[in-house]
Amino acid sequence: MSTDYTWHVYLAGEIHSNWRQRIAEGIREHQLPVTLLSPVTDHAASDDVGVDILGPEAEAFWKDHKGARINAIRTRSHLARADVVVVRFGPKYKQWNAAFDAGQAVALGKPLITLHNPEHDHALKEINAAAAATCREPEQVVSVLRYVIIQS
Amino acid sequence: MSTDYTWHVYLAGEIHSNWRQRIAEGIREHQLPVTLLSPVTDHAASDDVGVDILGPEAEAFWKDHKGARINAIRTRSHLARADVVVVRFGPKYKQWNAAFDAGQAVALGKPLITLHNPEHDHALKEINAAAAATCREPEQVVSVLRYVIIQS
Amino acid sequence: MSTDYTWHVYLAGEIHSNWRQRIAEGIREHQLPVTLLSPVTDHAASDDVGVDILGPEAEAFWKDHKGARINAIRTRSHLARADVVVVRFGPKYKQWNAAFDAGQAVALGKPLITLHNPEHDHALKEINAAAAATCREPEQVVSVLRYVIIQS
Amino acid sequence: MSTDYTWHVYLAGEIHSNWRQRIAEGIREHQLPVTLLSPVTDHAASDDVGVDILGPEAEAFWKDHKGARINAIRTRSHLARADVVVVRFGPKYKQWNAAFDAGQAVALGKPLITLHNPEHDHALKEINAAAAATCREPEQVVSVLRYVIIQS
Amino acid sequence: MSTDYTWHVYLAGEIHSNWRQRIAEGIREHQLPVTLLSPVTDHAASDDVGVDILGPEAEAFWKDHKGARINAIRTRSHLARADVVVVRFGPKYKQWNAAFDAGQAVALGKPLITLHNPEHDHALKEINAAAAATCREPEQVVSVLRYVIIQS
Amino acid sequence: MSTDYTWHVYLAGEIHSNWRQRIAEGIREHQLPVTLLSPVTDHAASDDVGVDILGPEAEAFWKDHKGARINAIRTRSHLARADVVVVRFGPKYKQWNAAFDAGQAVALGKPLITLHNPEHDHALKEINAAAAATCREPEQVVSVLRYVIIQS
Amino acid sequence: MSTDYTWHVYLAGEIHSNWRQRIAEGIREHQLPVTLLSPVTDHAASDDVGVDILGPEAEAFWKDHKGARINAIRTRSHLARADVVVVRFGPKYKQWNAAFDAGQAVALGKPLITLHNPEHDHALKEINAAAAATCREPEQVVSVLRYVIIQS
Amino acid sequence: MSTDYTWHVYLAGEIHSNWRQRIAEGIREHQLPVTLLSPVTDHAASDDVGVDILGPEAEAFWKDHKGARINAIRTRSHLARADVVVVRFGPKYKQWNAAFDAGQAVALGKPLITLHNPEHDHALKEINAAAAATCREPEQVVSVLRYVIIQS
Repeated sequence: MSTDYTWHVYLAGEIHSNWRQRIAEGIREHQLPVTLLSPVTDHAASDDVGVDILGPEAEAFWKDHKGARINAIRTRSHLARADVVVVRFGPKYKQWNAAFDAGQAVALGKPLITLHNPEHDHALKEINAAAAATCREPEQVVSVLRYVIIQS
Repeated sequence: MSTDYTWHVYLAGEIHSNWRQRIAEGIREHQLPVTLLSPVTDHAASDDVGVDILGPEAEAFWKDHKGARINAIRTRSHLARADVVVVRFGPKYKQWNAAFDAGQAVALGKPLITLHNPEHDHALKEINAAAAATCREPEQVVSVLRYVIIQS
Repeated sequence: MSTDYTWHVYLAGEIHSNWRQRIAEGIREHQLPVTLLSPVTDHAASDDVGVDILGPEAEAFWKDHKGARINAIRTRSHLARADVVVVRFGPKYKQWNAAFDAGQAVALGKPLITLHNPEHDHALKEINAAAAATCREPEQVVSVLRYVIIQS
Repeated sequence: MSTDYTWHVYLAGEIHSNWRQRIAEGIREHQLPVTLLSPVTDHAASDDVGVDILGPEAEAFWKDHKGARINAIRTRSHLARADVVVVRFGPKYKQWNAAFDAGQAVALGKPLITLHNPEHDHALKEINAAAAATCREPEQVVSVLRYVIIQS
Repeated sequence: MSTDYTWHVYLAGEIHSNWRQRIAEGIREHQLPVTLLSPVTDHAASDDVGVDILGPEAEAFWKDHKGARINAIRTRSHLARADVVVVRFGPKYKQWNAAFDAGQAVALGKPLITLHNPEHDHALKEINAAAAATCREPEQVVSVLRYVIIQS
Repeated sequence: MSTDYTWHVYLAGEIHSNWRQRIAEGIREHQLPVTLLSPVTDHAASDDVGVDILGPEAEAFWKDHKGARINAIRTRSHLARADVVVVRFGPKYKQWNAAFDAGQAVALGKPLITLHNPEHDHALKEINAAAAATCREPEQVVSVLRYVIIQS
Repeated sequence: MSTDYTWHVYLAGEIHSNWRQRIAEGIREHQLPVTLLSPVTDHAASDDVGVDILGPEAEAFWKDHKGARINAIRTRSHLARADVVVVRFGPKYKQWNAAFDAGQAVALGKPLITLHNPEHDHALKEINAAAAATCREPEQVVSVLRYVIIQS
Repeated sequence: MSTDYTWHVYLAGEIHSNWRQRIAEGIREHQLPVTLLSPVTDHAASDDVGVDILGPEAEAFWKDHKGARINAIRTRSHLARADVVVVRFGPKYKQWNAAFDAGQAVALGKPLITLHNPEHDHALKEINAAAAATCREPEQVVSVLRYVIIQS
């Protein structure tokens, strides 16, 4: 009576460490029926996509705006399709887009897993209060997925 | 003009008898296009999953809390995907999680089938009032599924 | 740039003439990517299903009730899955369940096609006002589906 | 700890007997915090409203269509606002619009009360299966409202 | 910048102790802008309402069914209107309807507060995992409401 | 970690230039996992479908009405299934149906891409304010899809 | 049994003639319980609001964008609150925002009334197919509202 | 034809400067029909509410968790009721809860206004891409509200 469907898991947040790779490895190792989704993780491409495709902007604000609206197409599609949303908060930067994705996930009724170090526990208490699990290591995320998907 | 799609049927509730197996056998025997979904039915694994994956807790309340939130990922995903939800109430224990699942199923607009002995009829009257069928035996659940899915 | 997905079309209403067969033939003839769904069309089986599976009732009201609640599992699942709902009103009987299905379809945002003779135009004006097409013959339903699905 | 809000109750269906008046009298007598809503009950006005306001039609079908679409504005608004929907089926006519309203009410998640004689029990079994109560007399509807609203 | 609207708080569950009165007293004492809603708390009236209004039944199952469907009108209306749902689990009985209400509340996105003794912590872990607060005493419920509503 | 699912992209609006072909070519060239959906683009067939299938009308208004309601079946199904909606505004005609489709797409939460010349910027400012990208050439639409779908 | 609640009617579209005033006069004359809502009808203020409040833009596109996004706050709030949406198409300009509002209204399930001259019937056929009434004069809109609201 | 209803505006985010007071003053000065809603702004009370009401915790994580879940009752109620959500990002701290609120607001379809200095433009580009306006000063927020609500 195992689960027969493929789960879509959206990996939002930090793009400066190898946490997505570590989750992908765990998924492969345990042969979990999971499709991983992610934002565009090429930082420069993500920042420049608006002006690269649609033409230059004199103002940084509008350059950002054009790019962010295009990236939102991907985010929105992935969030809509996700069975589970994992949000990683790294040690650096504001990462407001990670928290923004978490907010959307929760309002859409998607189960949320957070991944971050204890030093951010207090700052992330509102998001963790809405999460199904708070993990410290990517391998714990794999363990949670393995348990909820194939019960082992 | 038979139904061509696979139905997802979530079997919630009691984990201490073989009712899920009896339904699975009926599904196989009648070759119904049904995928059965279930909660994690290993009682110890289910109770301990929070601390097993995410680390120990001094307080029983938080141990339970960590585990229950992880189990909720599976429940929520299965409820969202289910075409029909079957909830079994056995002779023992409080089984509030079974009634809780039934409440979620009804509010999500999922057709609900209950499975329990007549001695619980009065205590389950609110849930049965919202159900599409009240069965006494797992084989009746199979008969209902067989009728609604392949009309035989 | 043809449509690549299979359309689910729920054929609700009258079970005393061969209109479903005529639509099925048209679907086959034009090789439309359509899966037809229908209620249980065996009148006796449909009337008796409640007591057949769940045990006899002394009162006709409760016999009907048990059967109708089981049939509703199928109806609800088909309505939820349908891309288009066709409701046929025949020359005889009250057929309130057909109108009831039409009401559910409209409230769920499903495109509705009605199929009936002109003599019922006035009595069906509220339902036709919410419909996308009012057909007189099953072959017209096929033509509408053929046009909207494969543009020919 | 009495209910403090006004309930909106939509009285759909038959317009050829005084059942709405009898319910209104009961509401007044028991001083229930209920606002009764109804369709336009002037049969001729309802039939002719389309051509009366928007100009004549040569075809009866389109005369009906124009009128029915205008009446649907009122129905849709009342259904959206209703806390409870009562649908009356009388002894005569097809009354498909009553069953259509019942279907919309159920799909919108509104509690449904039906009001009809036993002779229609079999024809209305699908609608009654989705209803919260089947009443024979308007005074029973009042009793149900009185009980659920002011607990007496 | 105080909250200016009246909160509707639905008090579901146990009807055999004075917890609703204690919450009502706290609401009055602190002059909170709260309207308390409750199920029908007269046990006998609640059990008999179906046959009292709609006529006798030979079978206990259908007597229960008729009553429970009428009570569901009230429950559904209150749940739909509630800003917060409080569910009390007492020391006795199965109380599956309390857990059923909690399930509906959560699926409808209503903030949930549970109220029960520590001895039920393990049995209620799934429901508490979805709750915003687990209280032991009615006065704690009042404190939570006071804090979230008037910030004092 | 590439996206593994097929995206449905609905191409609404102008039917008098080859923009759909140019997008289709780009999709093929870059082997994007995209299924393109479109309205019926045969202008005469689209205008006449109502009377062609359902019989002649004396009034142009009702001829249009019958046709438009049938076309709406296709539009509604495509909009519901679309992951992204592209709306093209050409140099001629009122094209109110294009703007109408854009409004439906936005209210359904679908990411919207507009495609039009700068001369229409002011007239389309409300629609562009709700869009994720404003393109001038079909190839830019392909670039946006390529970026959000396969991150290249 | 008259309607007791105030209807909110959103008057979208053309801002260059006195149609809103004529509807307002009719509402007053017949003392209808209607609150009329409208977009900002001061053309210059509407065009300039973005730069007036948030600072100048070098590019016309971004000036429009800033203004349109602010105007969308009002539109979205009014659409959400409206019981009925009236959209007026005048003789001049593209008026794509009017059609865009109509699309949003329909997707949100709001009853739609259009108001325009016959010369636009063909271009508006898709929108009229989704509308409850097509009026030629503002006084007809008043008549429709009067009929559906106070049944006279 | 002025707006006749009171707008609820939720002021989320930073609690360390007087921006809420400045908006409140502007609302009063211009007599806008606006009710301002806010989170609990007493930092210590907000941090300690969980243990203050429900008892001490040995672990900081659970202390935070208990408090955050209670605060979420208020946030969720305010977000549900808000016509407009304003989120302020200040110069200090992670402020992930502000971004989390913004994500929920957007997913719930609430118009969003951001308020922050230009130095955060790049970090907030995803949130600003989903916002209706980006303001630098509280008085600009007042101007936006004044314009969209009373058109002056």
